[in-house]
Amino acid sequence: MGEFDLIRRHFQRATASGAGVVLGIGDDCALLQPSAGHQLAVSCDMLVEGRHFFADVAPAALGHKALAVNLSDLAAMGARPLGFTLALALPQANDAWLAAFAQGLFTLADAHACPLVGGDTTRGPLNLCVTVFGEVRPGHALRRDAAQAGDDLYLSGRTGEARLALELMRGTDWAVAACGKDAPARHPELRERLERPTPRNALGTALAAVNGTHAAIDVSDGLAGDLGHVLQASGVGAEIELAALPVAPALRDLPGAQRLECLLAGGDDYELLFTAAPGARGAIAQASAASGTPVARIGRIVAAPGLRLLDASGQTVAFTARSFDHFA
Amino acid sequence: MGEFDLIRRHFQRATASGAGVVLGIGDDCALLQPSAGHQLAVSCDMLVEGRHFFADVAPAALGHKALAVNLSDLAAMGARPLGFTLALALPQANDAWLAAFAQGLFTLADAHACPLVGGDTTRGPLNLCVTVFGEVRPGHALRRDAAQAGDDLYLSGRTGEARLALELMRGTDWAVAACGKDAPARHPELRERLERPTPRNALGTALAAVNGTHAAIDVSDGLAGDLGHVLQASGVGAEIELAALPVAPALRDLPGAQRLECLLAGGDDYELLFTAAPGARGAIAQASAASGTPVARIGRIVAAPGLRLLDASGQTVAFTARSFDHFA
Repeated sequence: MGEFDLIRRHFQRATASGAGVVLGIGDDCALLQPSAGHQLAVSCDMLVEGRHFFADVAPAALGHKALAVNLSDLAAMGARPLGFTLALALPQANDAWLAAFAQGLFTLADAHACPLVGGDTTRGPLNLCVTVFGEVRPGHALRRDAAQAGDDLYLSGRTGEARLALELMRGTDWAVAACGKDAPARHPELRERLERPTPRNALGTALAAVNGTHAAIDVSDGLAGDLGHVLQASGVGAEIELAALPVAPALRDLPGAQRLECLLAGGDDYELLFTAAPGARGAIAQASAASGTPVARIGRIVAAPGLRLLDASGQTVAFTARSFDHFA
Repeated sequence: MGEFDLIRRHFQRATASGAGVVLGIGDDCALLQPSAGHQLAVSCDMLVEGRHFFADVAPAALGHKALAVNLSDLAAMGARPLGFTLALALPQANDAWLAAFAQGLFTLADAHACPLVGGDTTRGPLNLCVTVFGEVRPGHALRRDAAQAGDDLYLSGRTGEARLALELMRGTDWAVAACGKDAPARHPELRERLERPTPRNALGTALAAVNGTHAAIDVSDGLAGDLGHVLQASGVGAEIELAALPVAPALRDLPGAQRLECLLAGGDDYELLFTAAPGARGAIAQASAASGTPVARIGRIVAAPGLRLLDASGQTVAFTARSFDHFA
């Protein structure tokens, strides 16, 4: 089976439908019609075997995750998904692998009304590159540089489970010692969080419409590190109340230092971290309820630069924020 | 040097300027503002070492080509470039390599007012994925399915040089025998055509504004094969007058069969193949002159399916159209 047949069979669906799709796969370009006056939000992520996923990852999970991490970027901008492209390098054209990959990919795409509109397939070491497009009203995008001193600091969902899942899969001593070898069986949600993250798009688009919501970022490289990007771009600082951070059941067995590492520097969380004026608390509670996404108020933005972690008694806790670096 | 520093140093320029760029690199998404009412054209290509380029390719040429092949897709749609994203997997972060790559990339990007607006960098086997965005007025895009019986068939520039360059670099017998070992020195344009193709964007956007221009495609996998995509999508056939095909000086030394192979099934040409009503001949000549791009009328679209090649006396010439398949 040739390249064109392979693409057609698994990726060219009858309905590349979506409100904004004029022309889908099959021409030199896809054509989209954004809503009148809207801005276009664009994000792009490349996933490589051995670095972003294990060689034996379930292809359906990989299809899900390749799109999820990009949808998460749209969510962090408050942009509504319009469509995406997929470029795929494969060591060989494996029919069963492609079928499962496409199933994982399209299930998530359909749930977000975000059709595949184009792409490329070639032979090569396994590599996936998704570029996603969304739309947002001018002035409504949630930017990293928009945090203001006095803002509340919010987190959707909870962090740390993907990191703990990764450490357990690697057999890392502290993780196995604290959680036991049967942890993955007792906590199936851990692997789900690592391999099938849930992008927070319903919350993100709801937040973009809330008056008083300022900055947002998606937590992909660790809460502290990603918050650091917001603080730097906005020229402000922040305080996090550690007691306000939601802690997943599986993380409760961990010693304090490792729990903090997972919560603050876990990676692969794909939660939204955002700031808003205190006057927006009611509207944010409504956005949380309407989108079915838990949201916790975990601290505040302050004028003095830097990130301070506070314990239940208001004392500063030491922690060195790090961010995952693909070239470290 | 970490990933973030590396990206900032080579790819984050002070001016991600472009009429439509609201927010460039550095946030979860880039933000673009397309012109009012315009449609968005999107294309995506992935380049892999050993398949699309040699391991020892000059990084500046690679930077040029990665963007050029995508700009060519916009040209074939008649869309004006707005910006692009670049995802890059690198075996190691090599400063000199990145500097040269960025130079080749940005020189072409600047020439087309097409800024880099986002991307991703990771460690992995060398892989480049560019996604490009353009805009076009509703109803003006040059689609593959729009060719009509009675249309003239046109080709920009000339085909076959990139293929001959490739065969000479590989040391293929027929190429070396016909052209001599000193062919690359006598014909430096050959390697330029292979490694630094010129996307035909000025012509493509001019054609989109011409009344009577119908279908277009960019010739990347061979003239005959790519024309076949237009014929299939449009439900028509075509005749090519072989004597009307422009022949580059270097191709004149080739035996007839190999010359035809290069002209019709060369690959990597990045010329525009398009159709238009005979009434548009004057306007097309003007578009050719205004864009500084030679255009040849090489045949016509006919109602009967299939592609016929005609010699100077109007006799049919046998040729089996093939198209490059990355999984063949």
